[in-house]
Amino acid sequence: MATLAPSEVRRALADLPGWSRHRGAIRRTYQFADFPEAIRFVNAVARLAERANHHPDIDIRYNQVTLRLTTHDAGGLTEKDFELARAIDQRLH
Amino acid sequence: MATLAPSEVRRALADLPGWSRHRGAIRRTYQFADFPEAIRFVNAVARLAERANHHPDIDIRYNQVTLRLTTHDAGGLTEKDFELARAIDQRLH
Repeated sequence: MATLAPSEVRRALADLPGWSRHRGAIRRTYQFADFPEAIRFVNAVARLAERANHHPDIDIRYNQVTLRLTTHDAGGLTEKDFELARAIDQRLH
Repeated sequence: MATLAPSEVRRALADLPGWSRHRGAIRRTYQFADFPEAIRFVNAVARLAERANHHPDIDIRYNQVTLRLTTHDAGGLTEKDFELARAIDQRLH
């Protein structure tokens, strides 16, 4: 899978509020009411990640969860990262 | 809850293989067969954390999970951190 050009990354990010580029990856921090709600979100992300066979880095800080996506095999950002980011955010709505 | 003296921390760590002191906290990285197994461990940790009302930082990197424990209210390591670390590791055996 080919990495995206910077212009493609910018265009894809424009449709993903809350996500930003950071060191060859995209990331977003989500805030929840409490720790159990954060853990429920992590489980939903895990199901989507397994289905996509693409796994974000996940950092849990009490009621905050930060996801970080990149395509290690391709050495950068690919459509796979944005597909999973969109799937995760659709799940939130 | 009072923070532990360095000698108490050393003694407590001696009984917790894999855990080490790092920047005012204790941490351990666990390795699992795959991502779903790592997520199952995170859910077990989350249940113990809710029961203790004490919540580790949790970093998930595919099949690796790093836990970091400190007592923010006390400004350092307390018995609470070691109790939860022991409860988590007992769950693994």
